Amino acid sequence: MDFSHSEKSQQYQARLKAFMQEHVYPQEKAILADNKRLNEGRDFRHWQVPAAIHTLKQQAREAGLWNLFLPDAELGAGLSCLDYAPLAEEMGKVAFAAELFNCNAPDTGNMEVLYHFGNQAQQNSWLMPLLSGEIRSVFAMTEPEVASSDATNMQATIVEDGDELVLNGRKWWTTGLGHPDAKVAIFMGLSNPDNDKHNQHSMVIVPLDSPGVEIQRMLTACGDYDAPYGHGEVLFTDVRVPKSNLLVGMGKGFAIAQGRLGPGRIHHCMRAIGAAERALELMIKRGLSRQAFGKPLIKLGGNLERVAEARMLIDQARLLTLQAAWKIDKLGVKQAMTDISSIKVVVPNMLQRVSDMAIQMFGGAGVNDDLPLTYFNAMGRILRIADGPDEVHMGMVSRLELAKYTGR
Amino acid sequence: MDFSHSEKSQQYQARLKAFMQEHVYPQEKAILADNKRLNEGRDFRHWQVPAAIHTLKQQAREAGLWNLFLPDAELGAGLSCLDYAPLAEEMGKVAFAAELFNCNAPDTGNMEVLYHFGNQAQQNSWLMPLLSGEIRSVFAMTEPEVASSDATNMQATIVEDGDELVLNGRKWWTTGLGHPDAKVAIFMGLSNPDNDKHNQHSMVIVPLDSPGVEIQRMLTACGDYDAPYGHGEVLFTDVRVPKSNLLVGMGKGFAIAQGRLGPGRIHHCMRAIGAAERALELMIKRGLSRQAFGKPLIKLGGNLERVAEARMLIDQARLLTLQAAWKIDKLGVKQAMTDISSIKVVVPNMLQRVSDMAIQMFGGAGVNDDLPLTYFNAMGRILRIADGPDEVHMGMVSRLELAKYTGR
Amino acid sequence: MDFSHSEKSQQYQARLKAFMQEHVYPQEKAILADNKRLNEGRDFRHWQVPAAIHTLKQQAREAGLWNLFLPDAELGAGLSCLDYAPLAEEMGKVAFAAELFNCNAPDTGNMEVLYHFGNQAQQNSWLMPLLSGEIRSVFAMTEPEVASSDATNMQATIVEDGDELVLNGRKWWTTGLGHPDAKVAIFMGLSNPDNDKHNQHSMVIVPLDSPGVEIQRMLTACGDYDAPYGHGEVLFTDVRVPKSNLLVGMGKGFAIAQGRLGPGRIHHCMRAIGAAERALELMIKRGLSRQAFGKPLIKLGGNLERVAEARMLIDQARLLTLQAAWKIDKLGVKQAMTDISSIKVVVPNMLQRVSDMAIQMFGGAGVNDDLPLTYFNAMGRILRIADGPDEVHMGMVSRLELAKYTGR
Amino acid sequence: MDFSHSEKSQQYQARLKAFMQEHVYPQEKAILADNKRLNEGRDFRHWQVPAAIHTLKQQAREAGLWNLFLPDAELGAGLSCLDYAPLAEEMGKVAFAAELFNCNAPDTGNMEVLYHFGNQAQQNSWLMPLLSGEIRSVFAMTEPEVASSDATNMQATIVEDGDELVLNGRKWWTTGLGHPDAKVAIFMGLSNPDNDKHNQHSMVIVPLDSPGVEIQRMLTACGDYDAPYGHGEVLFTDVRVPKSNLLVGMGKGFAIAQGRLGPGRIHHCMRAIGAAERALELMIKRGLSRQAFGKPLIKLGGNLERVAEARMLIDQARLLTLQAAWKIDKLGVKQAMTDISSIKVVVPNMLQRVSDMAIQMFGGAGVNDDLPLTYFNAMGRILRIADGPDEVHMGMVSRLELAKYTGR
Repeated sequence: MDFSHSEKSQQYQARLKAFMQEHVYPQEKAILADNKRLNEGRDFRHWQVPAAIHTLKQQAREAGLWNLFLPDAELGAGLSCLDYAPLAEEMGKVAFAAELFNCNAPDTGNMEVLYHFGNQAQQNSWLMPLLSGEIRSVFAMTEPEVASSDATNMQATIVEDGDELVLNGRKWWTTGLGHPDAKVAIFMGLSNPDNDKHNQHSMVIVPLDSPGVEIQRMLTACGDYDAPYGHGEVLFTDVRVPKSNLLVGMGKGFAIAQGRLGPGRIHHCMRAIGAAERALELMIKRGLSRQAFGKPLIKLGGNLERVAEARMLIDQARLLTLQAAWKIDKLGVKQAMTDISSIKVVVPNMLQRVSDMAIQMFGGAGVNDDLPLTYFNAMGRILRIADGPDEVHMGMVSRLELAKYTGR
Repeated sequence: MDFSHSEKSQQYQARLKAFMQEHVYPQEKAILADNKRLNEGRDFRHWQVPAAIHTLKQQAREAGLWNLFLPDAELGAGLSCLDYAPLAEEMGKVAFAAELFNCNAPDTGNMEVLYHFGNQAQQNSWLMPLLSGEIRSVFAMTEPEVASSDATNMQATIVEDGDELVLNGRKWWTTGLGHPDAKVAIFMGLSNPDNDKHNQHSMVIVPLDSPGVEIQRMLTACGDYDAPYGHGEVLFTDVRVPKSNLLVGMGKGFAIAQGRLGPGRIHHCMRAIGAAERALELMIKRGLSRQAFGKPLIKLGGNLERVAEARMLIDQARLLTLQAAWKIDKLGVKQAMTDISSIKVVVPNMLQRVSDMAIQMFGGAGVNDDLPLTYFNAMGRILRIADGPDEVHMGMVSRLELAKYTGR
Repeated sequence: MDFSHSEKSQQYQARLKAFMQEHVYPQEKAILADNKRLNEGRDFRHWQVPAAIHTLKQQAREAGLWNLFLPDAELGAGLSCLDYAPLAEEMGKVAFAAELFNCNAPDTGNMEVLYHFGNQAQQNSWLMPLLSGEIRSVFAMTEPEVASSDATNMQATIVEDGDELVLNGRKWWTTGLGHPDAKVAIFMGLSNPDNDKHNQHSMVIVPLDSPGVEIQRMLTACGDYDAPYGHGEVLFTDVRVPKSNLLVGMGKGFAIAQGRLGPGRIHHCMRAIGAAERALELMIKRGLSRQAFGKPLIKLGGNLERVAEARMLIDQARLLTLQAAWKIDKLGVKQAMTDISSIKVVVPNMLQRVSDMAIQMFGGAGVNDDLPLTYFNAMGRILRIADGPDEVHMGMVSRLELAKYTGR
Repeated sequence: MDFSHSEKSQQYQARLKAFMQEHVYPQEKAILADNKRLNEGRDFRHWQVPAAIHTLKQQAREAGLWNLFLPDAELGAGLSCLDYAPLAEEMGKVAFAAELFNCNAPDTGNMEVLYHFGNQAQQNSWLMPLLSGEIRSVFAMTEPEVASSDATNMQATIVEDGDELVLNGRKWWTTGLGHPDAKVAIFMGLSNPDNDKHNQHSMVIVPLDSPGVEIQRMLTACGDYDAPYGHGEVLFTDVRVPKSNLLVGMGKGFAIAQGRLGPGRIHHCMRAIGAAERALELMIKRGLSRQAFGKPLIKLGGNLERVAEARMLIDQARLLTLQAAWKIDKLGVKQAMTDISSIKVVVPNMLQRVSDMAIQMFGGAGVNDDLPLTYFNAMGRILRIADGPDEVHMGMVSRLELAKYTGR
């Protein structure tokens, strides 16, 4: 196991950090304030992107810090999972940073799907504008009516009708749906109910302006709409798309989902680790600078032990994530299943814990949105549910562990 | 130790529960939705109270369910802390319920201050309209510039000038300041810097329309403005009030704060326990009604153990709170210090944990505001800071514990 | 709920504490050392009781501090569960104290069984000598071959043969079997396999000198034989006893076990709470008296927070136990099932945690047997398994919780 | 960071595993039983080593599996810390395995001291017989009278007197002192009280048969004497050794201790990780093979989640330890301080938790010494104190973390 980063990755790290120092941190507060001013309390149909974001995206692109996540050396940076990991961590330190480098979810996952599973026409129509940052995309999978932790519960349907596919269903937690540039969804539904359990569903590309696509509302997540991105509840009623929008083939939805799985997990875990590092940094700085009872806060009670706890939790979580990345790169997703599920549990819980400790150090200031701490904490909380709850992933880890003894 | 509730308390419990069942639960969703419609994203100067709240307050008052917290049998219900406790628990199950019975913070605490420490004129001017529910009040103590966990850090000042007092300072986390009916603050500041440490501060009644009082903004708390109540940041610049607005006397601020302490702690802890009971109820109902992997969610993995954990945590926290209430009633606040500090730590942490487990059972629905779970979770989180952080209260508990051996 | 202790209980508390102060604490170290000298490494067939124990038993009896657990006012002290609870707590502070007052497990439970379920002859033969402290008894239930957490797994058999009952089976964790005075067992086995599940087992009184009873070895529990009491592994091979040794009737084993349940749970939980109080006291005294890095240990790092944590855990656990006791007394065991199972989980885990913190404060001295801390810690650990593991009791709590909603 | 193991290490791993499979596991129960038979309850002066241990040592030596820990390629296996780590893990799975390969503490640490800091004569006299496994050694540092967590508290003295050094002091937790082959101690004491704080102590080689060395007793550790090794309390009274027994020079004790630090930490942490893996294996096998309530135990309640929790904890702890090893190898101990302190906290706590879960799965069998689980659990517990308590190491981690911001 070699977690060293290639020369190329190290150069990207240096350039990314420099860009963050020079362009992003100095504007962070102003951009978040501008975003609040533009979007707070607005109907999602009027959400706007702060102008500085556009400028920064342009600058990042010009600086060659663009599509860093994509392992293709032509279209992206050509980095392995392991090599990209520290870049994702760096981006995780600022709420909106990933977008600046066209490395934000769910576009990254969708671009990977189109890259690996899209045909030439699909790639031309959708992958290219996503890679250029012109448009954004969403992933329509989770449903309100059923326990989506068991994906076989899915109720949305995809039916063939001549040259068309007809889509029906209600989806929610469709992240990014409120963004003005969101133009296309990857929609998953039940298409072949007579097939065996893991070949019943398909994935289809759906332009969001298709008749029958109705965004009903944006959902708060821990009190926050996360404008201008948002998590949408959206109804698909007899939505018709040409069969050419089908990815791979009928019944191939789960196979694609599996393929989409691994790298995306690394991305969001590393961003979460970056968020935790930022929280710890803020916590320490506050603890050093405020006084109570005649001492800096950091010296009071168990505060220093909490600093140590945070450091130990973060370091362990990072190593586990790097191990998962290394295994994906070297052995493939199948051989990395324990690690991929483990980090899905470990990292968000770690972020929730570390950011909670940081909030506590700040007192009232910690729960207010002048600081990114409640954002990070909510991120940890939500990640414990999104993409499969803790319980499902612990189930996977234990199943693989038992299989060492039962052979099953 | 007798935690039995008097006949009178039991009758109030029955009537309160009946009122909740008949009037409150059936309207809960509609009122929360209306509140959202009226206030979400609005500037706090335009916050409104849903009409149904006014109606329910009127109905509660007519039903004799009014000012239940006040131990005075004429002005309130004449219940002891222990007797009021189960009523507070019941109110805690619905976000806005305490207000319906004129039992909401911070008015309860302020009414207690005016009741115990106000003179006749002060009571006529401010206690009476608060008891009638005509106006609301705020408590201006916490400051942004200093660690308020150490109250001696307080920087706001109160200076005598002839027949007037002149107030200066910046306060925040002034809860309820956004409410259209908020008319008066109890303001605490440094008035006698040459006195010994606990006799340097005073409390003064300040009408919120006094010149020099400037509400600068409302603060989000875990992403939520909690409209139409809100937590304000407010600047006091050369605010002048007559000396007759002084409570008790110059330098008596800490003494009043001590007196205000105990019962309010019981109130909010019991409401938090009610919130936890509600979260557990929602969690179980969801777990019984949703299916995944061929079983109700509640039967999967460690979910039933989490139900047991929640029950054990809640029951212990309630008993500790009842013990604190009983001690306040029978032995006085001084003899109840360990318990009063213990519940301040135990109960909010318990609520944070129980509501977190409930959120997890709901998956995506748990983090959205269709349900009160993130509200309850944020409530637990914020209560770990408000009114002294966990660390300060653990410090109190350990100090009293050591004193058993050192005599100090 | 009235957790006040009667005048009678308070007098017993005062007398018991005085006896402990005067006679027990001063001899504690010497008796433990003597016990070690007499028994350490000896074959259990030669275990001896330190002479001072005999003397103290005599003194306790003369002081009227005898059989305090028994609710019968003639034969015991006539105290309710709630009234006995603080006495058990006091006894829990010293490893061997309960025995001094003839209040030690498993004799207490066995005496209760004989008292409630034994006929006159059985009581004359066995209850009387147990009450006088002449003999000791054991309870033979747990079996090595099956998961005893599911009592229906039990494999030992009881077969009628003329006027006799024939017993076969292997039992272990038969506590107290090594004591020189252990003379009789209550044996539980499968007697009526055709009955419905909870009427298949019987309980039989078996003199330990019956042919066919073979003690095979004593078991270590967390490294300790707990001489001269011990936990035995014992084989019953065609052991014959007269039918008159049957308790109540064939198939009544579970019914008796249920009846034995509640008060015994209170006893051992209160003793565990006493042990935790003792551990906390030792922890604080050590923390105050040792210096490192220029300060008393107790002031370093998070140590004071751990003192507070211990106090909060203990106080909550005690209140829950008192509530269970009160419910048993006032409402009966059936109405106290949630509490009886809850304390079975909460209290031993609390003791394990508190004693672990105390050990840590002592460093090396904490893990050595000069102090009772590892004894208390092992006690907590073992109690999480004995009499049903945590998991079974959490299962009971959650089942009763769900029943509020399902009616089952 | 490259955690890959060299070809050489991989070959050793394969050979070691084969040796364990072929020779050690099959005899494990018999050897432990023999050890118990030989030593249980015996005075430590008569402790014996089971004959099979001698045979296995001989076999291991012949198999070239000898002194694997020593980085010197002539005298040992010439493996780096990282390369040795998986070998230590493997040895940790069986209580007595490290000794078979002459890789047991405290001899490994003492051999490292002699190897790095001993002069030629000292190496000839003491290192060689230790490397050959003829003799064993102890490390006399911890003292009963003072908080040894603060090493500057040390009270033992070393005084020059002509050509001799005169040693006085009381030491305890001198591990291995009961072993019949224990022949020599490295003794640390205050020698230069006028030097600055970290140059006041020296280390001296003391033959255990020197006049004035009096072993007073062996200490139980969590109820276990750990015969035939043991933890001794030993009095040094005017013990005289020639000055040539001084290591490095007067006042160099702390410098040597620092040098001894890193690799030993890796060794015991990796053994603890091996113990945890073994505990998890036993837990799963038991859970799969026992039935209760109609299912294998492992499928009940939260048991599978605990399997996942154990896997995630172990994997993280191992990666952190490998990182520490890699840093020691590549960057030196100074650059690895955070990691070396972190694993000292993380790994023993992990072992305590994992072995506790395993014990719980076994019920009564788990707390008995038929299985190695209480041994592993006690090992975790004791390691949280030995070689610096958790609190001291968390203090180191937080200090280094703060230094990133304060520059100190």
